[in-house]
Amino acid sequence: MGYLEANQPRFREELLDLLRIPSVSTDPERAGEVRRAAEWVAARLRRAGMTDVRLLETGGHPAVYGEWLGAPGRPTVLVYGHFDVQPADPLHLWTHPPFEPAVVEGRVYARGATDMKGNLLLPIIACEALLQTEGRLPLNVKFLFEGEEEIGSPHLGPVLEQNRDLLACDVMVSADGGMGTPERPEVWLGPRGLVALQIHLRTADRDLHSGNGGLAVNPIHALVRLLDSMRDAEGRVTVAGFYDRVRPLTPAERAEIAAAALPLEEFRRTTGARGFFGEPEYTPWERASARPTLEVNGIWGGFTGPGVKTVIPCEAHAKITCRLVPDQSPAEIREKLVAHILAHTPAYAEVSIEHLPGEADPYLIPPDHPAQRALVRVLTRLTGREPRVTRGFGTVPVMGLVKRVLGAETITLGVGQSDERAHAPDEFLRLASFERGQQAFVMLLAELARAL
Amino acid sequence: MGYLEANQPRFREELLDLLRIPSVSTDPERAGEVRRAAEWVAARLRRAGMTDVRLLETGGHPAVYGEWLGAPGRPTVLVYGHFDVQPADPLHLWTHPPFEPAVVEGRVYARGATDMKGNLLLPIIACEALLQTEGRLPLNVKFLFEGEEEIGSPHLGPVLEQNRDLLACDVMVSADGGMGTPERPEVWLGPRGLVALQIHLRTADRDLHSGNGGLAVNPIHALVRLLDSMRDAEGRVTVAGFYDRVRPLTPAERAEIAAAALPLEEFRRTTGARGFFGEPEYTPWERASARPTLEVNGIWGGFTGPGVKTVIPCEAHAKITCRLVPDQSPAEIREKLVAHILAHTPAYAEVSIEHLPGEADPYLIPPDHPAQRALVRVLTRLTGREPRVTRGFGTVPVMGLVKRVLGAETITLGVGQSDERAHAPDEFLRLASFERGQQAFVMLLAELARAL
Repeated sequence: MGYLEANQPRFREELLDLLRIPSVSTDPERAGEVRRAAEWVAARLRRAGMTDVRLLETGGHPAVYGEWLGAPGRPTVLVYGHFDVQPADPLHLWTHPPFEPAVVEGRVYARGATDMKGNLLLPIIACEALLQTEGRLPLNVKFLFEGEEEIGSPHLGPVLEQNRDLLACDVMVSADGGMGTPERPEVWLGPRGLVALQIHLRTADRDLHSGNGGLAVNPIHALVRLLDSMRDAEGRVTVAGFYDRVRPLTPAERAEIAAAALPLEEFRRTTGARGFFGEPEYTPWERASARPTLEVNGIWGGFTGPGVKTVIPCEAHAKITCRLVPDQSPAEIREKLVAHILAHTPAYAEVSIEHLPGEADPYLIPPDHPAQRALVRVLTRLTGREPRVTRGFGTVPVMGLVKRVLGAETITLGVGQSDERAHAPDEFLRLASFERGQQAFVMLLAELARAL
Repeated sequence: MGYLEANQPRFREELLDLLRIPSVSTDPERAGEVRRAAEWVAARLRRAGMTDVRLLETGGHPAVYGEWLGAPGRPTVLVYGHFDVQPADPLHLWTHPPFEPAVVEGRVYARGATDMKGNLLLPIIACEALLQTEGRLPLNVKFLFEGEEEIGSPHLGPVLEQNRDLLACDVMVSADGGMGTPERPEVWLGPRGLVALQIHLRTADRDLHSGNGGLAVNPIHALVRLLDSMRDAEGRVTVAGFYDRVRPLTPAERAEIAAAALPLEEFRRTTGARGFFGEPEYTPWERASARPTLEVNGIWGGFTGPGVKTVIPCEAHAKITCRLVPDQSPAEIREKLVAHILAHTPAYAEVSIEHLPGEADPYLIPPDHPAQRALVRVLTRLTGREPRVTRGFGTVPVMGLVKRVLGAETITLGVGQSDERAHAPDEFLRLASFERGQQAFVMLLAELARAL
């Protein structure tokens, strides 16, 4: 489409502009920047030709709404995305400052480049292009962008509930994801769910000289015992009932996962992974997509500076997240985790458990849903190849919520690739993907208009 | 002794002066402050009447030497102490700034108050008092103060070896310790030894989004497994051969430890300890004095800030120290630890082991040594009670070194008490102890002159 090509320099500048806003939702000191990103997105929607554009206040970071409803009687698509980003630390591992985007050899490096400020612009640009060239869209489009995805979308449920009519739709399109590579296109069935907890152990009122060892007890010993009790020698999670509601994989699904899997050597090469480990009954790709996990995301206690400090600390801490798969429920898994922690904390330590935000239901779209089939056709036309069917490893809380509150299924179209360092230093996005994604959204709107 | 009483206000001011110097030996940025403390101590020795006072350069922080050899033909005592202190962090837990000593209700609060700037002044003041009032000391006295005790005395061995003649003595008196309380006097037989290691585990080249869980492996899981493998369910250390050379306790020694033990309730009250745990064959007091330990002093990895960061880190770390008892050797235990770590690191992680400074031999003085008996007599006279015989929980590397290099045994006389928060925030010293300790050293010099 000539319009996209002709305006690509401007679209890139817009992307860099948006990437310069450090909209880190987890950092209270940057709440103003998250709001600035919301206002930037609202302005961009207006410029694209959307109407009724406004911020939806949530009590936390605001969401952004916009619509084009010029196709009465035709289906309505709700486009979802988020404009907040992960923290950038550790800063010293970035080649360029994370909020000063650098374009190097066809890639833009910045926090949020692949997750997901690039993706966010794709459907906006697609709508602008269609409105500018054809004067109309092939169906009705609504936009909902949130600013709290990276902290687990704590206010998204209330926003959906309070705006059921405003957000009513036939299907949702999430731009928060990938479509593989042009050589190896992929469609997603849905993301895993999430539960997040923080564990605090205390063994005394104050730190003690480690000469007291044997008399004074050590909360780090209690913590490593507790955490290690959550996993058996082969990596299975030992929390009672953890796997109870996991939908067993059919042979067909296992074949699908195997077909979509990249060679492990490829993962090893791009990440430097030293090995693989986990439930031996499943392949690493099955473990990462169709099996639940329990990960310690952070641990700390005692003296962590340079040199020796002969101390027995009085407290130790860990952060845990679980990725969930259908039909696990976050609330039920949380209860089981809490029961395990209480039962396995050594008697000499006092435990407190903090629920962290971010609970999300797992979600899978039925593979034969018309919108999913439309998506497959778009990717096939765009790349000349049949896309593999794959499951998201990560979590996008909105899908389970939208299914529950609005009753709509969700398809996913974005251009992130697995080697683009989402959540890590030197995150980047391929500019070729950015352009291809705009084209894909133009095609998808037409396909959905025919299919729904 | 009238001289001590008359000059007590000055002695206190001197103590506050010394406490104001932040001589944190573990912090390279404070090397100048450690040297300033050395010069302060040298000046104080000269003022007390010592001769040949000088700094002994070590390649690290300097040591300080001084002597009074005016009693030819009489025995020679070498007094040991250190003028460096532990780091003060976490700073926010201090009621007063750690290097602005505050005198409150008969206590001086500051980093180094009890460990051991107060103790360091006691023998200097005692010598000054004897020289000022009697014109002479009852025997020859040499002083050796180091500035690296809190980092494990890495240069003390070379200093002793290069100065064998200068430091030759009949017995050493370490001022780095306590003598219980006036109601419950104690003498020490000697400290435990030490080995210190740091463990680094790596599983990939970079941090990954925790959505990769199941595919990406987690170094924190490997670390908690490794650390937990070092201890059985009842708290015994499971490192092969760890207890091989531990001298078995005799029934008489166990009775001695039981007699010297404070009620556990007292320890619980002063520290807020939530419980006790460890080798069930031994009492907590036996475990802390006559049994070796393995403590994790620090652990860190992944995201430790507020909120959630869904990351699988690529590295995780821990610091470990072992306290050793006769006849364990630091080198041998270090080898056994390394073997255990290498054998128990999961195959999916890469391990590197860093030797931290501070290795020290355990030490016990024969209880019937004439100097030890002299010490018992001093405490008995000073307090009107028979002192209990006890073992130090902590580590004072100099004793094992002095025994090996100079062939001398060591007795310990200081005034630290176990509730004075050595190495912790709000460290303090009782000013009554400070005065009583000066008197004790005056008496000890006379007793040693008679006994040796």
